[in-house]
Amino acid sequence: MKNGFGSSVRVTLFGESHGPYVGAVADGLAPGLPVDPARVQKRMALRAAAGAISTPRREPDEALFVSGVYEGRTTGTPLTVLIANTSAKSADYEKTRAMARPGHADYTAFMKYGGYEDPRGGGHFSGRLTAPLVALGAVALDALGEKGILIGTHIRSLAGIADRDFSDLSRELPALGEKRFAVLDASAGDRMRRAVEEAARAGDSVGGVLQTAVTGLPPGVGEPWFDSVESALSRVLFGIPAVKGVEFGDGFALCGMRGSEANDPFAVENGRVITRTNRNGGVNGGITNGMPLLFNTAVKPTPSIAKPQDTVDFFQTKEAVISVTGRHDPAIVHRARAVVDAVTALVLADLLALRFGTDWLRGAR
Amino acid sequence: MKNGFGSSVRVTLFGESHGPYVGAVADGLAPGLPVDPARVQKRMALRAAAGAISTPRREPDEALFVSGVYEGRTTGTPLTVLIANTSAKSADYEKTRAMARPGHADYTAFMKYGGYEDPRGGGHFSGRLTAPLVALGAVALDALGEKGILIGTHIRSLAGIADRDFSDLSRELPALGEKRFAVLDASAGDRMRRAVEEAARAGDSVGGVLQTAVTGLPPGVGEPWFDSVESALSRVLFGIPAVKGVEFGDGFALCGMRGSEANDPFAVENGRVITRTNRNGGVNGGITNGMPLLFNTAVKPTPSIAKPQDTVDFFQTKEAVISVTGRHDPAIVHRARAVVDAVTALVLADLLALRFGTDWLRGAR
Amino acid sequence: MKNGFGSSVRVTLFGESHGPYVGAVADGLAPGLPVDPARVQKRMALRAAAGAISTPRREPDEALFVSGVYEGRTTGTPLTVLIANTSAKSADYEKTRAMARPGHADYTAFMKYGGYEDPRGGGHFSGRLTAPLVALGAVALDALGEKGILIGTHIRSLAGIADRDFSDLSRELPALGEKRFAVLDASAGDRMRRAVEEAARAGDSVGGVLQTAVTGLPPGVGEPWFDSVESALSRVLFGIPAVKGVEFGDGFALCGMRGSEANDPFAVENGRVITRTNRNGGVNGGITNGMPLLFNTAVKPTPSIAKPQDTVDFFQTKEAVISVTGRHDPAIVHRARAVVDAVTALVLADLLALRFGTDWLRGAR
Amino acid sequence: MKNGFGSSVRVTLFGESHGPYVGAVADGLAPGLPVDPARVQKRMALRAAAGAISTPRREPDEALFVSGVYEGRTTGTPLTVLIANTSAKSADYEKTRAMARPGHADYTAFMKYGGYEDPRGGGHFSGRLTAPLVALGAVALDALGEKGILIGTHIRSLAGIADRDFSDLSRELPALGEKRFAVLDASAGDRMRRAVEEAARAGDSVGGVLQTAVTGLPPGVGEPWFDSVESALSRVLFGIPAVKGVEFGDGFALCGMRGSEANDPFAVENGRVITRTNRNGGVNGGITNGMPLLFNTAVKPTPSIAKPQDTVDFFQTKEAVISVTGRHDPAIVHRARAVVDAVTALVLADLLALRFGTDWLRGAR
Repeated sequence: MKNGFGSSVRVTLFGESHGPYVGAVADGLAPGLPVDPARVQKRMALRAAAGAISTPRREPDEALFVSGVYEGRTTGTPLTVLIANTSAKSADYEKTRAMARPGHADYTAFMKYGGYEDPRGGGHFSGRLTAPLVALGAVALDALGEKGILIGTHIRSLAGIADRDFSDLSRELPALGEKRFAVLDASAGDRMRRAVEEAARAGDSVGGVLQTAVTGLPPGVGEPWFDSVESALSRVLFGIPAVKGVEFGDGFALCGMRGSEANDPFAVENGRVITRTNRNGGVNGGITNGMPLLFNTAVKPTPSIAKPQDTVDFFQTKEAVISVTGRHDPAIVHRARAVVDAVTALVLADLLALRFGTDWLRGAR
Repeated sequence: MKNGFGSSVRVTLFGESHGPYVGAVADGLAPGLPVDPARVQKRMALRAAAGAISTPRREPDEALFVSGVYEGRTTGTPLTVLIANTSAKSADYEKTRAMARPGHADYTAFMKYGGYEDPRGGGHFSGRLTAPLVALGAVALDALGEKGILIGTHIRSLAGIADRDFSDLSRELPALGEKRFAVLDASAGDRMRRAVEEAARAGDSVGGVLQTAVTGLPPGVGEPWFDSVESALSRVLFGIPAVKGVEFGDGFALCGMRGSEANDPFAVENGRVITRTNRNGGVNGGITNGMPLLFNTAVKPTPSIAKPQDTVDFFQTKEAVISVTGRHDPAIVHRARAVVDAVTALVLADLLALRFGTDWLRGAR
Repeated sequence: MKNGFGSSVRVTLFGESHGPYVGAVADGLAPGLPVDPARVQKRMALRAAAGAISTPRREPDEALFVSGVYEGRTTGTPLTVLIANTSAKSADYEKTRAMARPGHADYTAFMKYGGYEDPRGGGHFSGRLTAPLVALGAVALDALGEKGILIGTHIRSLAGIADRDFSDLSRELPALGEKRFAVLDASAGDRMRRAVEEAARAGDSVGGVLQTAVTGLPPGVGEPWFDSVESALSRVLFGIPAVKGVEFGDGFALCGMRGSEANDPFAVENGRVITRTNRNGGVNGGITNGMPLLFNTAVKPTPSIAKPQDTVDFFQTKEAVISVTGRHDPAIVHRARAVVDAVTALVLADLLALRFGTDWLRGAR
Repeated sequence: MKNGFGSSVRVTLFGESHGPYVGAVADGLAPGLPVDPARVQKRMALRAAAGAISTPRREPDEALFVSGVYEGRTTGTPLTVLIANTSAKSADYEKTRAMARPGHADYTAFMKYGGYEDPRGGGHFSGRLTAPLVALGAVALDALGEKGILIGTHIRSLAGIADRDFSDLSRELPALGEKRFAVLDASAGDRMRRAVEEAARAGDSVGGVLQTAVTGLPPGVGEPWFDSVESALSRVLFGIPAVKGVEFGDGFALCGMRGSEANDPFAVENGRVITRTNRNGGVNGGITNGMPLLFNTAVKPTPSIAKPQDTVDFFQTKEAVISVTGRHDPAIVHRARAVVDAVTALVLADLLALRFGTDWLRGAR
């Protein structure tokens, strides 16, 4: 598996930050799904660096679909996207070749690949590889939307500043898709941005929590045990750089409750089974119950900071001090949400295809 | 994949709570690993119900290895364990066939399997299926121990009562393996047990957080992106019933820190690269850095409670009230830790075999 | 993967010839499929040793379904079958522990497992492990039959004696299911049996070719490239002990034809696309075209023979002479056909589930 | 799986004949393997169309490695190769959009993908997709060669004309790597080429059998049952377009022998276990025995021929006559051998990595 995930819909990721391209292949998406370049670029823009609170590295990040598309629709054969690395400035990195940036994969990649890894800009471990995931996810998001399945993520907290909670998903999820800075409460968003700018001025960075909601999922989706909705999603979410925690529904907060509080009582509403609360995030026993799927993803502060940090030169096994001087984000939480939406769409497309067959995603609701 | 996990070492799980057996197969474990029945049963006992704070269902839970063992050692071919369900009392469950126990998989299993699922005692979704995982994990735990890799889990909190933190893993991890109630602070353990008993008397249940540590892992283990140590472990941990959150290192708490605090500075100690703090839980970029692997698993309160709860009869799509009267645990956190240890050992055995080959686990350090 | 195959329907095989059980798990079969013990045993009987031309080892080979069945139907969760090894006489084998039986896996297993392998009766490499495949396959065969998909295999040749060709599949396939010695031409069958008996008297063994036909498959089943119908089937067929060749349609004979002869011309018959010949065995580009699926499986002579053979003692790396004295079949071709039918059913169930979803196999045609 | 194969080394294939690129990703190759463009192009040339007996379509087929290479060596992260489709003339194909070329995947792809498939030049089913396999295989072939494992394929027969048998692999295998038309007997090669030219003049095509040998494999490689050397290789070989049969060692010919003849007697030579004959092709029980691995691959005649053929228009379900007028090969056997070598190298790299770990392929012998 390694750089891939999924079974009926399978994604394979490749590339390095400063190689010619980063890219990904999605094998098993239904034939006939629209691939609309404008809509893909719109999702790409949500991930792109923007404004004072992001890296000055700006690339057009045009998603080039080089296989699996014919006359504007998926063919059903592997869908491959390439994104050119046009803005790579490798010189920034070379002097620090053997200097392990704290919190980064430099040292661990060296221990795994023995010095053969591409060290430029984080190489294969760069957040840049999330761009092709967003491009593929855009196709899945649109197709799921056509089936009435909506996915949206807001910045639940950033630098310790909280957004308000979801209150009306049918209105909020579509609205989030239009926001570059995905908060429900605009004033919280303003405060968050100021906190990021302040950290940036201090040569530092901040982290935050993303909350994702999915509505319209039929009940009975997901597999027992190790391909549960929670297992399948967490596996992929933890693959996103800087993610250090994942919880479903009320997650860790459930641990302090009693069963009578944590259990969501079932009820009937308009002839349909619902739960009166949704502390379990729409999943019981790993399988969807028809309520909104809800989960939180913890994104740690960007590890690349200007502030001097103690580290080692791992060629010489010698202590050193590093100040990361490349172009870096003081926060990636607001960008990561586009990645979370994308991989959520791809994971759900897989679970739905497994359950209902490869063509289901195309069919009319 | 579904009821399985792993690539080079692959586990497949099967069985239902009230069928003749629950069982599991581990394919790909190195040949020549000791399979010591006494040591396996000792691990099984750590998972077994015990004392006032567990279900009165008592089964010998003898692990029967029916393939893959010859003259007391693994053969390298699939290792299969069966555990008989001797104490099943199906009558307890039949009257509530279509009554969805809140927080359980009854309703979602019905929506997935269309009524063909085995409903007795949670069927395939029963926590009872974790028993064979513990049996297989016991073999992996012993083999890893021989290679100097130690795994241990304590109850970080239960019913809101906190244990003290790890302070000396080399001493604490072996000690945890001897404790039926895995706390570092015995007085915290007493208070936890009283809280469980109190919840039980109220016909209710409690949850908690497990913290796991692994020492002795070489740096450079794990795969980039979607088979990272975090991806591989979280996928399997979320497969354990009642797990609703997983975080590595400081996890969600990292989100409120600045990068300068969240990044673990590298240093050299006795000619070896270490980090001065371990907020990232021994993993950078998904790959081990040689520091202890640390993670927390959120276990929600046991959903089966005696207290009356609102629910539905899903055959008739009609509201109802349920009081779960079978034999149930007021808490499973203290039992789940044996499962967490076991799957951690199996997941790490897989990642190590992938990296170093199928025979590595047997070889001398 | 190793001891397993399939993606949406996944089979895992375990056991050793002289361990307590051989068994297998099928994960992902649709819920609601009948599991009829009498029909399963009938398929088991087709694989069982019989008459003068098979091993005197006779075991009841009762298929014990220990998970995944409830009230006579599959639950949709892992279906596990166990078959007890009641007749194992290990003493037969022990003296020849390190004597590599020519044509067998004794030496290669030793080189792979380093002496930890179970050597009794071929251990994990014994043809006995095909019994649970037949039991699981029986469930799949019945379910496919309900969907109008029929599978049958005849002994195309044995000991150089040819059966006649298929001429009327709609009549021949059901008839084959009733025959213990699966030939279309009874007199050819008589001659085959005499040839087997003659080889047996000479302390020798014979091989043969099985031809399998499948009717009723919808067109458009199979995946491009490496999960083509041919890829998926051949992978599993070559897993059956003694299989050394697989060909689809006219197979190797196509190589001597010209394209104008090898290409099957398309035509329309009763408003349906057909091909006028079927030299490609119902598969174009790896995907079914709606014509009968046809393939041949080469089964080499049973390697265990009484005749003295040159070999080595691999503990001492010393030359030796072996005369295999256990209970062995002078031919397994006639028994292997039940295995070929079974794995064909399981592989097709997987490809169909991948295409049409997990529940398709249960649904009405 | 679908368009991929392998576990520890995993290959994913993508592209369409007339899209911008065909390509493939190999994930899991050891870090530090040389990627020498000249040597890769040399292997590409062996697959390329050449002389009067191949399609006039000539493309430079430059292998562009866009990820996984740094300073001329593999990094250990996914190795991706792209090959541009510069010579595509789609107009040739458009008029025959719904005309099923007999022996091709046109009709079956339509039945699978519902008309969304890319129909130009065979789309995703084109033999052109084997080019990236050859490029990736070149890297694996070189690395295996460094470990003393040599792979070579000759045209055992073409148009019914037989090459002579292998007689001295240590000399013949390296020599085959230098030959564009891979025969051991040059005069047989001349006759083969004349037969191809003759078929071409008749607007027809021919097929043949490829025989592959691998020397230097350690004993004990391969997994039991469904990841046996035979299973793993056959799965991938049958993925190559036009392959309709695969046999190991003497394959189908074994079926007419007695066990005493088919069994390869073991012996000791220079302190090493060998077999005196090699009818089983170096594999016992699916695992290598240290003798040369030998197998035959049946390649049917190229289905695209100029001769008029009966077919159907599958949009209208109407009979029609087709004469395939594009640029096509009267034989592909001589080109396919480069593909067989390549996938053999990739499959063996996977089995070796699974057994000995991801870094083994780089290490010194």
